[in-house]
Amino acid sequence: MILDKVTSPADLKKLPADKLPELAREIRDVLINKASNFGGHLGSNLGVVELTIALHYVFDSPKDKIVFDVSHQCYVHKILTGRKAAFLDEKLYRSVSGYTNPKESEHDMFNVGHTSTSISLACGLAKGRDICKRTENIIAVIGDAALDGGEAFEALNSAVEVGGGLIVVVNDNDMSIPENHGALCKHLAELRKNEGKCENNFFKALGFDYYFVKDGHNIAELIEAFTKVKDITHPVIVHCVTKKGKGYSFAEDNSEKWHWAHPFNIETGEFYKGTAVPKENYGSIVGQYLMQKIKDDPKIVAMTASVPAYIGFNSERRKEAGSQYVDVGIAEANGVTMAAAIAKSGGKPVFVTGSSFYQRAYDQIEQEMCINRCAATMLVAFSGINGHDSDAHAGLYDMALLGNIPGLIYLAPSNKQEYLAMLEWSIEQNESPVAIRIPWNGVHYTNEPVPPEYSKTKYMVRKSGSQVAILGLGSFYQLAEQVAELIKKEMKIEPTLIDPMFITGVDEPLLEDLKSNHKLIVTLEDGIVLGGFGARISQFYGVDDMKVINCGFHTEVPTQFTVEEMMEKNGLMPEQILQRVKDIVGGNESTEEKK
Amino acid sequence: MILDKVTSPADLKKLPADKLPELAREIRDVLINKASNFGGHLGSNLGVVELTIALHYVFDSPKDKIVFDVSHQCYVHKILTGRKAAFLDEKLYRSVSGYTNPKESEHDMFNVGHTSTSISLACGLAKGRDICKRTENIIAVIGDAALDGGEAFEALNSAVEVGGGLIVVVNDNDMSIPENHGALCKHLAELRKNEGKCENNFFKALGFDYYFVKDGHNIAELIEAFTKVKDITHPVIVHCVTKKGKGYSFAEDNSEKWHWAHPFNIETGEFYKGTAVPKENYGSIVGQYLMQKIKDDPKIVAMTASVPAYIGFNSERRKEAGSQYVDVGIAEANGVTMAAAIAKSGGKPVFVTGSSFYQRAYDQIEQEMCINRCAATMLVAFSGINGHDSDAHAGLYDMALLGNIPGLIYLAPSNKQEYLAMLEWSIEQNESPVAIRIPWNGVHYTNEPVPPEYSKTKYMVRKSGSQVAILGLGSFYQLAEQVAELIKKEMKIEPTLIDPMFITGVDEPLLEDLKSNHKLIVTLEDGIVLGGFGARISQFYGVDDMKVINCGFHTEVPTQFTVEEMMEKNGLMPEQILQRVKDIVGGNESTEEKK
Repeated sequence: MILDKVTSPADLKKLPADKLPELAREIRDVLINKASNFGGHLGSNLGVVELTIALHYVFDSPKDKIVFDVSHQCYVHKILTGRKAAFLDEKLYRSVSGYTNPKESEHDMFNVGHTSTSISLACGLAKGRDICKRTENIIAVIGDAALDGGEAFEALNSAVEVGGGLIVVVNDNDMSIPENHGALCKHLAELRKNEGKCENNFFKALGFDYYFVKDGHNIAELIEAFTKVKDITHPVIVHCVTKKGKGYSFAEDNSEKWHWAHPFNIETGEFYKGTAVPKENYGSIVGQYLMQKIKDDPKIVAMTASVPAYIGFNSERRKEAGSQYVDVGIAEANGVTMAAAIAKSGGKPVFVTGSSFYQRAYDQIEQEMCINRCAATMLVAFSGINGHDSDAHAGLYDMALLGNIPGLIYLAPSNKQEYLAMLEWSIEQNESPVAIRIPWNGVHYTNEPVPPEYSKTKYMVRKSGSQVAILGLGSFYQLAEQVAELIKKEMKIEPTLIDPMFITGVDEPLLEDLKSNHKLIVTLEDGIVLGGFGARISQFYGVDDMKVINCGFHTEVPTQFTVEEMMEKNGLMPEQILQRVKDIVGGNESTEEKK
Repeated sequence: MILDKVTSPADLKKLPADKLPELAREIRDVLINKASNFGGHLGSNLGVVELTIALHYVFDSPKDKIVFDVSHQCYVHKILTGRKAAFLDEKLYRSVSGYTNPKESEHDMFNVGHTSTSISLACGLAKGRDICKRTENIIAVIGDAALDGGEAFEALNSAVEVGGGLIVVVNDNDMSIPENHGALCKHLAELRKNEGKCENNFFKALGFDYYFVKDGHNIAELIEAFTKVKDITHPVIVHCVTKKGKGYSFAEDNSEKWHWAHPFNIETGEFYKGTAVPKENYGSIVGQYLMQKIKDDPKIVAMTASVPAYIGFNSERRKEAGSQYVDVGIAEANGVTMAAAIAKSGGKPVFVTGSSFYQRAYDQIEQEMCINRCAATMLVAFSGINGHDSDAHAGLYDMALLGNIPGLIYLAPSNKQEYLAMLEWSIEQNESPVAIRIPWNGVHYTNEPVPPEYSKTKYMVRKSGSQVAILGLGSFYQLAEQVAELIKKEMKIEPTLIDPMFITGVDEPLLEDLKSNHKLIVTLEDGIVLGGFGARISQFYGVDDMKVINCGFHTEVPTQFTVEEMMEKNGLMPEQILQRVKDIVGGNESTEEKK
């Protein structure tokens, strides 16, 4: 194998250019093989094999700095920069993360996981280079869909003024996670069609020089273009046309399915059973529900920022929903604001994105949604420890983030019936912006009735007891049940078990009531404890004799972990919580128990 | 006066077109007169007198919906839509806010105060119109500088896909608050120079139709353009060239000074003494400090998102700083990310914007800054109740927002010496992102030494006492001093007085120590209590006998208020706090005192 000889970019440069296509084939096989065993972002990496080889052939990393946007397309880069063992040797698969990470290699500039930041980072690196009087090349590699995000534009707008050389490689595969959206994608299509020529060039309008690479899988063509722009002293776009999933027919044919591949059979392209999304999941449940609503009511608008799967909107449903489905591209700020205005204008919008990505729309939720009391619904996916993929795709911060926004009702259902009741209520009410945290710990059920109405913070007491009350919020309600069982069994106490359902607000009458025959409140929340749900319970009882333990996650989260490891590390296993309860209610009020 | 006859857009439409320039002159006088007595956004409103008259002459508000970006330029709109008394009658000056507000009039669609949202709101209104089968015109009015914000681009990118008619009026005055920045402003300059023609039209690249109005103060020309686009069925830009401050020579000549005018003498253009910024202020102090740093060290970069005054960077300093000054335009996300990368690249960036505007960069602070541990400095201006202008320009939320981001050190100095020591330390350290909350309650001093180092959370005990400990954070430290004095005088107790300095983290050893001879902790913070500083102190003492009161602001803030009103309403006057302390430490542990 040629790849045997390549453990660094320096080795790569020693190869004759005519050997590079063969190297590309080898790397492609390596990518497909690892993904088939381990899963991963297959499509996007297959699309940049040649592009990445050419970059490292022409530029001198790590002196020259390459920033990958989102960085889920960095596998080839990792293979070429000393980390190929993590792709070849099954035992070492976990030795690298799925994103760039400076801790792994000096060739990785940043730990990145959110879209649309690479040009901005590159502008900063260029500025830093210039004030430090260095001369390296700065290269941002960004996909067409990531250009939809406002920050990418902000940086394009700044680049000319920052001055100096800056190379933006647009990896144009005409896809987001689902199909692409927006005017820029149409513009890129026109440029592709006319081989880089068109009447109004978006990039040139912003002062960029512009190069077009017709075949982003032709290494010679790529090398030629990159050589031309190397050491350039002004900002330049290199627009490369690539194909997502290139070289693996199943991935080429259905790039949405193969954006993130579960382990699969290489020959048949089938995901192995048990590795894919479970059959019963909230995506499919809500997808069905929303499609029915859409058919019944022309004012319903299902909205997303490029992640329709979170509400089960597969391509058939998207088509069927027609103009009642809006994908704003990877542009959460615009999505939230547009939803607010749709609500104001008489529509009933339901917007969805991931917990980590609501971070990009805090301002819009606080301003457009909440100050204006626009009755839109926001669904928060990939929340909690089960949704927390890494520190760059956090699921643990959303309650501290959204839960303290004045005027927002933020709900945490703990089962299917609650989730659907909350969704139905939220869509049909006209008073308040509402966010619902989709429980990410699987689909659970209740046999008890759930409230039809959620305008006022009111917790639900599922079991009345004494001495200890457990408030198990949302996806930690099932944990609360386990803890309650344990306490009953081990301590011969019947604790009160509460399903708070509300992240925002406090059910003051209930908390007041609990004082009469309880001495300890245990709050359980599937997020960081700082600024979260438990904090307001602690604040409530600040001058009372009631003891309060807030159980949840501390702020440090490693890049890689298992859910069980994290639960144990944060003292969230039922036995650990039991022990803390025993220490306090048993009369042993150890001061070491308060964190 | 012609204005006498106009109390609604319907009245306006009855006027012959040739009377409109006279009306414009009258309105201009009214604007100048009110601002000279009361202050206000003078420059931007003088710039849109004709534009607003023409809009209301052609379109049919409130059926047709006009959304003003930021909406600080809505005074003329308010005058024409039934609220002129608030501009003519001194007694009624306060009867309208400085921004659009649906509570005031059906002609105001949204309560808006942040930039770059109008096109997104208009897209949502257009979508709502279409699904509700209505046919009104939707018009967004946006300044050239607001187009720099990423959300504006996201919405331009979405508009064609949303479909239907959408009119974006670009009010191009070639200014932000200071001078304009970025490639788009250069592009607009080219369009202005060539009367709307140029090789690569940015707006056309995004699928917009495009009209150019050469003289945005010529009402006939404006009416002609607006009439052409009325009832259009696709997205269109109407690019109008205006002059900020038009018609008042002082404001035309120095539009930065006149962006927000303090009360002034109309004849001389001088702000009255005592109404402008006090001579000793943190802007000028930090401006001097940073300029010296810049001269001494080429790696320092002073950065802002269009608000250089917050660090005292007047036009002379900006010039002198040269390439060591970066204004990213109103694009906070890009500013924060770029700062992170400059730090990574060896530079020493200091970024500043207002408390309310950090909301737009949460994601970038959490991701680029904190996960990557980029040692940049962020200064938070207009914080606390003194910086809180309205719910759309909040100063009270930043501690709940930034204080819970893992990995960030967020500092709250209470005096000048602390602020400068923190700033010096932050700039020179290389370990952590740091935010500093500029005390917005005037410049205070301390006679005691301040720490030179802030890498670990360590509160400063200013006075050791017993029974009651008061933690007065940042701009509430002086309040804590007053409360301590009162307690001493009224209760004959010497309370412990602490200057916590750190919003993030908890000084656990100190809090532990306090248990030995204190029974009550009072936290004072100049922000909302939910998710803030006091919450973590309450959490710390959750299972102890220590009582904790968190004093700060509740979440509801009216649109208009005085600082004293708000302090009293939230129980933050020294006597009110004293009473709460008495109720608890006096042995009367009333449970009604815990909010």
